[in-house]
Amino acid sequence: MAAARHSTLDFLLSATADCNAVFKSLQPIFQKQGMTETFCHNWEDHGYLATYVNKNGSFANLRIYPHGLVLVDVQNYSDLNGREETEQLLNKVEERMKELFHGNIKRVKRLPGIVRGDAIDRYWPTADGRLVEYDIDEVVYDEESAYQNIKILHSKQFGNILILSGDVNLAESDLAYTQAIMGSGKEDYTDKEVLILGGGDGGILYEIVKLKPKMVTMVEIDQMVIDGCRKYMRKTCGDVLDNLKGECYQVLIEDCIPVLKRYAKEERMFDYVINDLTAVPISTSPEEDSTWEFLRMILDLSMKVLKPDGKYFTQGNCVNLTEALTLYEEQLGRLYCPVEFSKEVVCVPSYMELWVFYTIWKKSEV
Amino acid sequence: MAAARHSTLDFLLSATADCNAVFKSLQPIFQKQGMTETFCHNWEDHGYLATYVNKNGSFANLRIYPHGLVLVDVQNYSDLNGREETEQLLNKVEERMKELFHGNIKRVKRLPGIVRGDAIDRYWPTADGRLVEYDIDEVVYDEESAYQNIKILHSKQFGNILILSGDVNLAESDLAYTQAIMGSGKEDYTDKEVLILGGGDGGILYEIVKLKPKMVTMVEIDQMVIDGCRKYMRKTCGDVLDNLKGECYQVLIEDCIPVLKRYAKEERMFDYVINDLTAVPISTSPEEDSTWEFLRMILDLSMKVLKPDGKYFTQGNCVNLTEALTLYEEQLGRLYCPVEFSKEVVCVPSYMELWVFYTIWKKSEV
Repeated sequence: MAAARHSTLDFLLSATADCNAVFKSLQPIFQKQGMTETFCHNWEDHGYLATYVNKNGSFANLRIYPHGLVLVDVQNYSDLNGREETEQLLNKVEERMKELFHGNIKRVKRLPGIVRGDAIDRYWPTADGRLVEYDIDEVVYDEESAYQNIKILHSKQFGNILILSGDVNLAESDLAYTQAIMGSGKEDYTDKEVLILGGGDGGILYEIVKLKPKMVTMVEIDQMVIDGCRKYMRKTCGDVLDNLKGECYQVLIEDCIPVLKRYAKEERMFDYVINDLTAVPISTSPEEDSTWEFLRMILDLSMKVLKPDGKYFTQGNCVNLTEALTLYEEQLGRLYCPVEFSKEVVCVPSYMELWVFYTIWKKSEV
Repeated sequence: MAAARHSTLDFLLSATADCNAVFKSLQPIFQKQGMTETFCHNWEDHGYLATYVNKNGSFANLRIYPHGLVLVDVQNYSDLNGREETEQLLNKVEERMKELFHGNIKRVKRLPGIVRGDAIDRYWPTADGRLVEYDIDEVVYDEESAYQNIKILHSKQFGNILILSGDVNLAESDLAYTQAIMGSGKEDYTDKEVLILGGGDGGILYEIVKLKPKMVTMVEIDQMVIDGCRKYMRKTCGDVLDNLKGECYQVLIEDCIPVLKRYAKEERMFDYVINDLTAVPISTSPEEDSTWEFLRMILDLSMKVLKPDGKYFTQGNCVNLTEALTLYEEQLGRLYCPVEFSKEVVCVPSYMELWVFYTIWKKSEV
């Protein structure tokens, strides 16, 4: 199925623009490219808009703002012909604009065209809401589970990327994420009891099992995440998800809330609790209303199963969402027991933004 | 000066679309938002285009492709009003489309709006041509030197970023770049003779000077890069650019080609040569025609001033430009002396793509 390509070319002028003059000068360029001017609107105080249409299905907008901004948009089929047609048109517009304004153009900006409606979606905005295009060239896995949409997409540079309900979770390039949420190489996991909440990609489990722990228990709600990652994220999880039980680990396919409650009741304690749940965690327990209350409940339960000298690791958020980070830290002051925390900013390759990781521990009683 | 915001909303349908029916259903939504339909084109085999115009200067395109793609574009002033107006409109279109097509929409995609013609430009495509938006909030420095356009822009997460003629060079967050081009911590610079080609941001110089070298000579052509970085990239260069001469370093403001030739003639030799020139190096020497020949000349001259057991470090390219990397490696087989090389892929935070670094050394004669 044909996708569309949307291309833009922008001119920021150093002075106000004579809209009519610009319009008249550029019109022949569109016409020569087989585009008929089918519509022209003159706002007077807001400038001009002209729309040009080509028989082959492509169209262009020329928007001239009187304060000195000229924006050209071309939309056509995303094939080689369409691409060449657009390049030619935009080259000619740029040439003509430079003749018209000589040194009076402050900026010419031609962005990479946006491909819209393609079978392979390359645009996955960052957590702080910026537009970024990935080098995705294949949809490896795309399924709806009972809990979420699960995509594994292949990136040329990052390897396979796990995307849960539109959020980039982890790529095969992202050992930096796994290392950060394990305490950045400063911990000794030998003979330790470890609890992983979530972690369905298997990255943390795979790395910890190498370190000879006593027992790692991983509680992941979504079997389909495990199924997908076992098959397509092997650089991340190795063979650790091939069986849900190994010599020093077990994977429970369960909601972590009842498991945590059970462990708390049994007074089962861990040296490390690693929270690798999705940003807004999924649970089948409807008892808590807000996300913050829910996050606090997980924290409280985790603290209950954490040994007095144990450590709790979790990912926080992108470094730019300072408000969300502050709110999270406020929750830490409202747990059933006093805790202290430290944080670290880490570059996770596939995220295209810096990420904050937390270490939390129980305040020692003096 | 007012910038424009360009917003998009795309629907990929699982079946062909009745263009006229979609058009008729969505039309009242545009009209209720004060947009008059001023133009409608029907291609028959290529579908519909409708253009709507608002008195306040905003406009919208509704493009319906019969194979099952519906694209909405809204362009207006990039202020709070414009933003809210667009959100409202797109929300209503999305609601209506979901009513119309129920479960037959394969994908709804609303990208972060693109701000066009703003005083602060946030879009700096990657070397492999992908569209990425940065979190730039301030233009710190913007000057034309005799050689290039020099920008230093402030990113909330990466700190100040040096951009030379549109290419992201280095951000204050990018110690990973400097470490990689110094050999990733595996070299002992104590009492060594080091030559840096380019490196005007001062990052390499600052890091090596800490390691007690015998003498570091840095040859940077553009005084204005040094001036800008000394002032605004201090997390990168520290105080090392405050003087062009220190106890164990000197900075020459010169084209590196004649300097290399002079050193070669004098038989002055270095333990390390670090090539930190821009991707397409700037030189005042017009003697070489092509970029590859020019790069080879720099390599040849560098090998001439490199001790037999010395090492040459350089950045290559983004990992996705495999053809350019292969061509570069071919040049290495065409130098005046036989060399060997290794490469490393590194994540440089502000690049938003993985980068290849080379280590090159003279093949030992057996």
